[in-house]
Amino acid sequence: MPATTTGPDSSRARSWWGWGYADAQPGDAECVAMGALLPGTLDRPLPVPRVADLALGRPRVTPPASLAHLVTDEPGARAAHAMGKAYRDVVRALRGRPGRIPDLVGRPGGERDVTDLLDWADGQGVAVIPFGGGSSVVGGVEYRGDAHRAVLSLDTTSMGRVLEVDTVSRSARIQAGALGPVLEAQLRPYGLTLRHFPQSFEFSTLGGWLATRAGGHYATVRTHIDDFVQSLSVVTPAGTNTSWRLPASGAGPSPDRLFLGSEGILGVITEAWMRVQERPRHKASASVAFADLGPALDAVRALAQSDLAPANCRLLDAGEAALSGASDDGSAVLLLGFESATAPVDDRLAAALETARAHGGTGAAPEPESGRAERAADAAVSDWRTAFLRMPYLRDGLARMGAVVETFETAATWDRIPALIDAVRAEVGAAALKATGHPATVNCRLTHVYPDGAAPYFTVAVAGRPGDEVAIWDDIKAAATDVLHRHRATVTHHHAVGRDHLPAYARQRPDPFATALRAAKDALDPRGTLNPGVLLG
Amino acid sequence: MPATTTGPDSSRARSWWGWGYADAQPGDAECVAMGALLPGTLDRPLPVPRVADLALGRPRVTPPASLAHLVTDEPGARAAHAMGKAYRDVVRALRGRPGRIPDLVGRPGGERDVTDLLDWADGQGVAVIPFGGGSSVVGGVEYRGDAHRAVLSLDTTSMGRVLEVDTVSRSARIQAGALGPVLEAQLRPYGLTLRHFPQSFEFSTLGGWLATRAGGHYATVRTHIDDFVQSLSVVTPAGTNTSWRLPASGAGPSPDRLFLGSEGILGVITEAWMRVQERPRHKASASVAFADLGPALDAVRALAQSDLAPANCRLLDAGEAALSGASDDGSAVLLLGFESATAPVDDRLAAALETARAHGGTGAAPEPESGRAERAADAAVSDWRTAFLRMPYLRDGLARMGAVVETFETAATWDRIPALIDAVRAEVGAAALKATGHPATVNCRLTHVYPDGAAPYFTVAVAGRPGDEVAIWDDIKAAATDVLHRHRATVTHHHAVGRDHLPAYARQRPDPFATALRAAKDALDPRGTLNPGVLLG
Repeated sequence: MPATTTGPDSSRARSWWGWGYADAQPGDAECVAMGALLPGTLDRPLPVPRVADLALGRPRVTPPASLAHLVTDEPGARAAHAMGKAYRDVVRALRGRPGRIPDLVGRPGGERDVTDLLDWADGQGVAVIPFGGGSSVVGGVEYRGDAHRAVLSLDTTSMGRVLEVDTVSRSARIQAGALGPVLEAQLRPYGLTLRHFPQSFEFSTLGGWLATRAGGHYATVRTHIDDFVQSLSVVTPAGTNTSWRLPASGAGPSPDRLFLGSEGILGVITEAWMRVQERPRHKASASVAFADLGPALDAVRALAQSDLAPANCRLLDAGEAALSGASDDGSAVLLLGFESATAPVDDRLAAALETARAHGGTGAAPEPESGRAERAADAAVSDWRTAFLRMPYLRDGLARMGAVVETFETAATWDRIPALIDAVRAEVGAAALKATGHPATVNCRLTHVYPDGAAPYFTVAVAGRPGDEVAIWDDIKAAATDVLHRHRATVTHHHAVGRDHLPAYARQRPDPFATALRAAKDALDPRGTLNPGVLLG
Repeated sequence: MPATTTGPDSSRARSWWGWGYADAQPGDAECVAMGALLPGTLDRPLPVPRVADLALGRPRVTPPASLAHLVTDEPGARAAHAMGKAYRDVVRALRGRPGRIPDLVGRPGGERDVTDLLDWADGQGVAVIPFGGGSSVVGGVEYRGDAHRAVLSLDTTSMGRVLEVDTVSRSARIQAGALGPVLEAQLRPYGLTLRHFPQSFEFSTLGGWLATRAGGHYATVRTHIDDFVQSLSVVTPAGTNTSWRLPASGAGPSPDRLFLGSEGILGVITEAWMRVQERPRHKASASVAFADLGPALDAVRALAQSDLAPANCRLLDAGEAALSGASDDGSAVLLLGFESATAPVDDRLAAALETARAHGGTGAAPEPESGRAERAADAAVSDWRTAFLRMPYLRDGLARMGAVVETFETAATWDRIPALIDAVRAEVGAAALKATGHPATVNCRLTHVYPDGAAPYFTVAVAGRPGDEVAIWDDIKAAATDVLHRHRATVTHHHAVGRDHLPAYARQRPDPFATALRAAKDALDPRGTLNPGVLLG
């Protein structure tokens, strides 16, 4: 059994405390260079924390012999499953104050193993934290409090197989522990792809995506993983919930939709039949610059309200564009991408560019592509994507320099978007300044767009105060949550609720729905074994 | 207060026992002509039933004076709210054996009225049946059993206003009792449309569509009303559930999705913010003939798996095409339609026709359209649409001739579709023959298509046996339900569950979900006031 959380490349060690692979973490020199860009940070990086320095304690329970092969108490594994990968989590690890470390880490190989582990834990008063790939940035995979006898973190990444492929119906039955690259590699021989590429793609699982309603590749139309679900298998203490494979149904409230977004409190998702796609054979992309954000927002709204359905329609404000190298002149940049398995997309891109230009956008004409497969996107798109995947590593490097660096995201209807973005910038910036005494960077991009609204994604970076990083971030986050709530913007578009968003979620959620969800929880998990503290407190 | 169920044209009387407007029902001569097409039917039509012949009984409760203006016990209104509009309902009315007639009919004018009526009924042990427009074809709006002190049918059609329009976000807040034409008339001045056009469009309400997850206008992508919901207001005995207006959210399981498809058992939907569309300025349509259904199914699957997203993609088998006048030579006919508010659609139609031809389809080339608004569709499409809206009236005429005529619908993944259609034809035809001694017509069309499957819709017509029509239909329906279940095809794609589909739904629904739904019901409606017998039995 692998000692720590696995990644798709099993020859590389995962970081127990930070993002991704340990060997991809920025070195000390790179940390110092990054820190120099943010006034007020440390002169040298905090040391990389060591598992050996943690007070793990002995596991408070022992699994029965029949389950011993599915469970480990190896210190590295326990430490790596103590928390997710939020800034809050990284800095707690750096400061030697990680969350409650689980007593045991379970690694089920399939649905039967999940059932056995859950049955045992449920009978023993042991809390079960479905960990998936552990990339939660909202406190979704740690234990808080002291109401359970012990804690079992359930790492599902050993359940990574594509079990069946139906090429006629373009569907695949996939084990829920499959990491992004693991499932894509198994679909590729069929010419198929799930095309769900969150920033955490390498280190998050299908089951995690489903349990948190993850936002994926497509910027329009089918933005969430929800839309690709044909059926689910979910192990609950009250039995296994397996829905029928159906392209659509009108038979009562959707059973799958109750479990999508349930964040492990109702059951452990073990398998799903997913709607997969033919691999795109036609792609075209371009970037458009806008001198001001306002007209850029109008352009994006016009595109979202057209029939063009771009796969990528990502608007970066000036700060975000500069940070990612997409522009260096203070422009906002719109990244556009189209793709299709069946037909050239040049015309759609051309029409989108015409719309963008009508709103004052400027930029290079796209290269003609006419069916050439997997062609390189233009330079801005390509630079941006590289930066996108690198960002969480850089965040950890900045955290080592004492910086407070984190993101949060939301969605709101178009009528509220311009004022919302302005208010977040002003109020979150002010809160960061107040908390740290340093000026903060607050950047914004739109990650997903809809005919009726958009999903803004904010990045905050500011020099912290040694030892106070968590408290500083909590202050900043409280300001962010407050402004989102006043603008009736959702507490999360695709990062999930976890434990960190619980108070804001409780205010946003309609009371009768909360009553119904609590009743469902009590009926399916009467002993409160599953992910206690998430969604319902 | 109007005496009976209203339609959008208040100058015309609604039929209390049959479909639509009384003056649109076929006359005796037309009934006889239709009956002649179905061997074994009666020589003359059954008489139109009269309210005066019903044994209504006196209402068993009296509302308090404060609610008297919202409630009627007028016999015509009570009779018109006893049942929905299934064949089963029509023939029970014709035979003088309607379902349990409600004691009172409520006509709330807004959410406050709904709350007041529900509070009163809930406190008095009076069952509340949310009636909407009353077009249920699955026993969704009648009372069965005897567990309640009295029955209040809640006709919401007096709540028909569009309350707010947000043109920036293309959204409208609409009262749930708005009938299709009523809400479209109010959106038209803004250049907007909901574009939800079920067969029941004139006589069903937004709230009914939402409560039953109705299938609408679009044959692809956004097929169900669910996809157009931005937020809901639902009055429950435990309080009013009002979700935030959001274009998308990842905050826990979707609160709206619990109420969508809840068929009135959890609450009464009173308002919704809906995503509306700009009115299409570009339309193009065409029909394609196929000598055999198999290649036609392959063509439709290829279209559903392309990016073309036709608004209409309706495949009629030979019998269905002949009946609607779309073909008279034994061909299957594919009706294709494209529409857009922003760009010409000729290219998309041309590409779709190319795909259809590649699978052996033949047909007239589409007329060029180039942006002409609201152009006439081609003859087959137009004929079919007229027949479509007329069909429920003709069914009632045939019912008066002693025929058993009804439809049922389902959805399944593509790998199962050909065998499913064959099996339904064979087994339902055999069951109809066995039940009646007469050969039956069993036709099929695909109403909605998906990348991973399709929604077949079947029509059965056979001469009945006087007085045994309900039992005959129940036998035929049992055979249909059985074959759907064995092929793992859903009990309903968009007609809903009601009381008629309950046993099959209970077999299809995963047990833990049933447990959760029961718990939600008990928490929100602890006295079982709301639509008892639906979904949970």
